[in-house]
Amino acid sequence: MAGASVSPTPLLKDELDIVIPTIRNLDFLEMWRPFFQQYHLIIVQDGDPSKVIKVPEGFDYELYNRNDINRILGPKASCISFKDSACRCFGYMVSKKKYIYTIDDDCFVAKNPSGEEINALEQHIKNLLSPSTPFFYNTLYDPYREGADFVRGYPFSLREGVPTAVSHGLWLNIPDYDAPTQLVKPRERNTRYVDAVLTIPKGTLFPMCGMNLAFNRELIGPAMYFGLMGDGQPIGRYDDMWAGWCIKVICDHLGLGVKTGLPYIWHSKASNPFVNLKKEYKGIYWQEELIPFFQSATLPKDCTTVQECYIELSKQVKAKLGKVDDYFLKLADAMVTWIEAWDELNLSGGDSAKLANGVGKLAI
Amino acid sequence: MAGASVSPTPLLKDELDIVIPTIRNLDFLEMWRPFFQQYHLIIVQDGDPSKVIKVPEGFDYELYNRNDINRILGPKASCISFKDSACRCFGYMVSKKKYIYTIDDDCFVAKNPSGEEINALEQHIKNLLSPSTPFFYNTLYDPYREGADFVRGYPFSLREGVPTAVSHGLWLNIPDYDAPTQLVKPRERNTRYVDAVLTIPKGTLFPMCGMNLAFNRELIGPAMYFGLMGDGQPIGRYDDMWAGWCIKVICDHLGLGVKTGLPYIWHSKASNPFVNLKKEYKGIYWQEELIPFFQSATLPKDCTTVQECYIELSKQVKAKLGKVDDYFLKLADAMVTWIEAWDELNLSGGDSAKLANGVGKLAI
Repeated sequence: MAGASVSPTPLLKDELDIVIPTIRNLDFLEMWRPFFQQYHLIIVQDGDPSKVIKVPEGFDYELYNRNDINRILGPKASCISFKDSACRCFGYMVSKKKYIYTIDDDCFVAKNPSGEEINALEQHIKNLLSPSTPFFYNTLYDPYREGADFVRGYPFSLREGVPTAVSHGLWLNIPDYDAPTQLVKPRERNTRYVDAVLTIPKGTLFPMCGMNLAFNRELIGPAMYFGLMGDGQPIGRYDDMWAGWCIKVICDHLGLGVKTGLPYIWHSKASNPFVNLKKEYKGIYWQEELIPFFQSATLPKDCTTVQECYIELSKQVKAKLGKVDDYFLKLADAMVTWIEAWDELNLSGGDSAKLANGVGKLAI
Repeated sequence: MAGASVSPTPLLKDELDIVIPTIRNLDFLEMWRPFFQQYHLIIVQDGDPSKVIKVPEGFDYELYNRNDINRILGPKASCISFKDSACRCFGYMVSKKKYIYTIDDDCFVAKNPSGEEINALEQHIKNLLSPSTPFFYNTLYDPYREGADFVRGYPFSLREGVPTAVSHGLWLNIPDYDAPTQLVKPRERNTRYVDAVLTIPKGTLFPMCGMNLAFNRELIGPAMYFGLMGDGQPIGRYDDMWAGWCIKVICDHLGLGVKTGLPYIWHSKASNPFVNLKKEYKGIYWQEELIPFFQSATLPKDCTTVQECYIELSKQVKAKLGKVDDYFLKLADAMVTWIEAWDELNLSGGDSAKLANGVGKLAI
């Protein structure tokens, strides 16, 4: 095969799954072929399970539709949303890899100001493999990037940083606006390429978008639950926001880092603002109470695993947000179901031993 | 005068002073002429007062040397550092304007990636005149910039923002590193132009550099004290850091914003790392205790003016940092002297009435 090109092995090839929620043929993958083809894909098919989703040739993937989710999780499938891209979190649960990258099927490869195509996944991996600095702000942004460092006055004891759990990427072209902003600024496009990655400081919440997101499953996976949205629920388009508030509170508690900034993807198509408004309006109203709740949420010291933190958070959701709307009682229960389902599919080795040990203690 | 060019009136022309600490002739102003010439300069001459500092023709300025400071402040002049650029804060005190921009005399006009000269002062003014968002992070950076907005999931109740008290600009070429980093990376240059301005979240401290800094004197002036550094003091190069920690705690308490990012200036010359190490080494050691102190500092609700906050902070410095070193006892006293001197030079109109009213109440 003289002349055949040899692709170098990409970073974390066997340690990362790409999770894609979809209702249509995945032609968008053609553009991502040079960057994604050597990775494994987990496709979560939303909506009608009888529909056949076409995946371009040459990609290595597994695909789950609603029937598969119901079969695998049984009654616990109730915690996975239907007719909403929140269903993607089922992919996080069935993955066996250490890292997840998730992307929407209307996102394409963006270009940097020099006109080069951006390898978004590679940048996410760099973000995840280098530490975060949540305890003190560095004015030259990510101090671990080439050509940068900690500036004068940055405490030396904090320069080792903490492990990075989440890497939140951004979008050129169509910005991730809510329905009211979409309606008011229908023509606004994001053309500003900001060449920075930074750690979101401890104690600060942010709006996490699921369009272009990577995380370390081992560090934070069980908290990456996208909630109850879509079919049969009073709310949509808050799946990633909900997950973002939960993971941030838990990362802050466990001393883990959350980064935002690079990489950019090209977001091709704005969703319909009228449809979005219908999905969002309760969220827009409720978030005024949710944000103060998450800002003041504290977890007890004896919560040392993500699961323990998440169960504790579900109790606080039930106790404090149940008053806002009955929906949050249902959501709090779903958070518990999610953890049960996660543990059923994922516990093995050390974790099982720990659980067995826990059960043993109860039996004494 | 046919053909003479007419300069448009620049922003805040009569409401802003430019404060420059120096020990040499101010030839660097030639490069800034198009941007600074219509503003008033306050030059604080450090070191030998008999030396004559030459200021290029055509600039409107007042100049203070050590003799002037001693004459104006009398015994209270002890709070103004000597043989250290910390002396610049005297300029903040004698200014009668609402806004201050301060810049070092080894800073030149930088260029943006398109090769255009950056009007640093204009960008600072934009930063100061638009609100800050300290309570929730916006992933597309400053939401008030053209082409940007608040993203989906940003609470609507927080979109008005809060008044901006401080605008912290950055540096291309020579980064603001401490002596150990200068020694380890003597050739590192900052070449990354990050096209962003962002609010430093509430509860997060940052290393504030005095090289390229603007602030609203009315909102935060009395807390912009650069401490006791240089001649007769055990420490140097922590003047701006000290001020940065103090102003951030007070801005957080009073609900004011601190921004960092654009504009860049071109920092031309690295200072001597061996000299710097001597000035810094106690600071490097002490800051490990100072940061936790400022991170946990809280101010009582009845502190509603910057002066009240600052006096309260000085008490906490004395009580908690006095144990670290006697230097902090002296510094705490100097903080009080600074406020007394500030009020002496600045109280008038409404403030005097308030003071008189306070005295009246005491007399009852």
